[in-house]
Amino acid sequence: MVGGGQLARMTHQAAIALGQTLRVLATDPSDSAAMATADVVLGDHRDPEALARVADGATVLTFDHEHVPTEHLHALERAGHRVAPGPDALVHAQDKLVLRRALADAGEPQPVWARAETPDDVVAFAAEHRWPVILKTPRGGYDGKGVFVVHNREEAQTLLERHGVLLVEERVDLRRELSAQVARSPYGQVAVWPVVETVQIGGVCAEVLAPAPGLSEELSSAAQQLAVRIADRLGVVGMLAVELFETGDGVLVNELAMRPHNSGHWTIEGARTSQFEQHLRAVLDYPLGSTAMTAPVAVMANVLGGAAAADDWDGPGLDERVHHLMAHWPDVKLHWYGKGQRPGRKLGHVTALGDDVTEVRARAVAAARYLADGVVDPRYAFEKPAFEKPAFEKPAFENQPPTPTTPREPGHE
Amino acid sequence: MVGGGQLARMTHQAAIALGQTLRVLATDPSDSAAMATADVVLGDHRDPEALARVADGATVLTFDHEHVPTEHLHALERAGHRVAPGPDALVHAQDKLVLRRALADAGEPQPVWARAETPDDVVAFAAEHRWPVILKTPRGGYDGKGVFVVHNREEAQTLLERHGVLLVEERVDLRRELSAQVARSPYGQVAVWPVVETVQIGGVCAEVLAPAPGLSEELSSAAQQLAVRIADRLGVVGMLAVELFETGDGVLVNELAMRPHNSGHWTIEGARTSQFEQHLRAVLDYPLGSTAMTAPVAVMANVLGGAAAADDWDGPGLDERVHHLMAHWPDVKLHWYGKGQRPGRKLGHVTALGDDVTEVRARAVAAARYLADGVVDPRYAFEKPAFEKPAFEKPAFENQPPTPTTPREPGHE
Repeated sequence: MVGGGQLARMTHQAAIALGQTLRVLATDPSDSAAMATADVVLGDHRDPEALARVADGATVLTFDHEHVPTEHLHALERAGHRVAPGPDALVHAQDKLVLRRALADAGEPQPVWARAETPDDVVAFAAEHRWPVILKTPRGGYDGKGVFVVHNREEAQTLLERHGVLLVEERVDLRRELSAQVARSPYGQVAVWPVVETVQIGGVCAEVLAPAPGLSEELSSAAQQLAVRIADRLGVVGMLAVELFETGDGVLVNELAMRPHNSGHWTIEGARTSQFEQHLRAVLDYPLGSTAMTAPVAVMANVLGGAAAADDWDGPGLDERVHHLMAHWPDVKLHWYGKGQRPGRKLGHVTALGDDVTEVRARAVAAARYLADGVVDPRYAFEKPAFEKPAFEKPAFENQPPTPTTPREPGHE
Repeated sequence: MVGGGQLARMTHQAAIALGQTLRVLATDPSDSAAMATADVVLGDHRDPEALARVADGATVLTFDHEHVPTEHLHALERAGHRVAPGPDALVHAQDKLVLRRALADAGEPQPVWARAETPDDVVAFAAEHRWPVILKTPRGGYDGKGVFVVHNREEAQTLLERHGVLLVEERVDLRRELSAQVARSPYGQVAVWPVVETVQIGGVCAEVLAPAPGLSEELSSAAQQLAVRIADRLGVVGMLAVELFETGDGVLVNELAMRPHNSGHWTIEGARTSQFEQHLRAVLDYPLGSTAMTAPVAVMANVLGGAAAADDWDGPGLDERVHHLMAHWPDVKLHWYGKGQRPGRKLGHVTALGDDVTEVRARAVAAARYLADGVVDPRYAFEKPAFEKPAFEKPAFENQPPTPTTPREPGHE
């Protein structure tokens, strides 16, 4: 797996159960996944030589992000390596202009869009579809980066000068954002999970509600079928997340991710087969697992580095906050990524299950917010229990790269 | 964690979510857990120097088996290391005579027993409690090893000459075997799971049914309370499995395990908190997690190396059998340990969930037997789908120690 982030880390957990060895290409031994896996190759995902080293001897090469240049992947395929998803599919998750063209050819629903090379292109588009418009860098954006709300020619000009050719889109009058995830194997088998609602704060995924509350059977089914059609048409192998805008008229495709995705973390506890296990089953061409939910409602909340990650934080430490969380919500599941704390960074997530979305959501969000900010959420007040200082020092919950004291010589006793 | 077997391997999966680094002491780089973890110390669990190396810098030292000599653990404690469970507790899982004496002192229910040094001791015991009797080696037995049904003085004499002092017990007229698992933290918090039935074949655990079918509330609660009393009295920290005989009069304690235990593998999918996560929470003194079940019934079946592990096996290969299993039972969860196949060896397990114990059990056992023996279980016949040879070679599902191509130098790019 190219990339040593939390997606690779959680994929490794699934690989262990399947008896598979997940090798990761990480940039640093303290990367989230490199801390947890036995087989780490250090190198950059833009370096053909590093890619060849991680692919060498592997059954299949896959990804925890979209950023490997497709020319390198084509070269790996020519050299006989199996790449899943392949570069011809992956490019649709890399380049928003390529995606828009492909969806237009397929007649799939998406925001009105155009390619913008000059300020005049943007002004002409806005004349037809109203200011403000959305400008997007075709490549490299994630978590709201590379997306701009633009109100006039001057703003457009500044962005075009800085970024070159851009994608211009109408500003969609959206009700909310949804995500439809599907896994597809080389054999062509597909499996879909219930469509979820994703709640973004500042362009970053904060919460995922599964299934999307109040979504009609009809729209849910339409979104699942849309995801399957896209996976089939693009020849995706592995996980595909189709990020959607829900509008008064149905759904529009926002963008794609071809890997396990933040909108599917709830599946670890909330579905019979997690997106991580399913991704491995798909890229290894095993039959796919059941996507049935394990409870009526699952809610995932991200723990983003917050007030408690600041240098001058003098509230309860992370270890104390984890104690409180575990004591107060013994059924909320914690997933910690082992990263150093930094404001805004995705440090971990929590998942809660139950019957009532309002209660489950309040519980998950309060738990995540308490971890991030050290504050008790008024929506789910709890009496903070007295903290009994544990009898011994706990680990720092941060990067602790394994000390290479014991060289791993096979056969050595 | 001392020991690199499947228990350490599955504990590592739980450690990843908790943001913890599990270092394992393994005897070989191809040990089940050593294949999956980033931090491996190679050495023998009877070697004080190896134990010191794995304990060095660790928050707490714990175990995936009972075999570390207690004098070494006392020495580690004197050197300032935290050991959980501590040697004074652990000895009760190591030495059946020590356990029998402790349970007698505590007035807890157990089979009638005596210490047997000479054939006369055994004959005198049998005169009171009838032949045959059970002779057990106090130490070193597991999976039915070290347990003998003895019918006369001669058989007793042979065993005493071979093994030295033995434990003699009445042969209990048992209905079935049960297991009560409890986790206990240094703080003294305890958490119990539903009591399960364990089905042994040839002394080896083959199936675990959760909860134990038809067990009365009263007996279930009595078994849980017994487990909690033992954990408290012995000062156990971490997981404790109390193996029980169910008789017409209630339950009797057979033996103890102070670590994650085969009878608790079902908790990975079947309970809100798995025994592996709970063991880590307990030894690290975090509040314990919810032990609520995620479905009315969970059944775990071990995959023991069977007909298909024999050298002359010419039926469907393991990869083909895994394909059939996944295609036929998309909701049965596979846990493969990455060990070389050998008849009788625990190679993995499967877990099935559902509402009806007869159906769930048939499904789990059929899946495990198909993996082990390549035969379709008549209790759960299925039409074997045509096997589409996958387009590429799959990994062997066996030990593939990571190739140490990339030295892990912290800071290296």
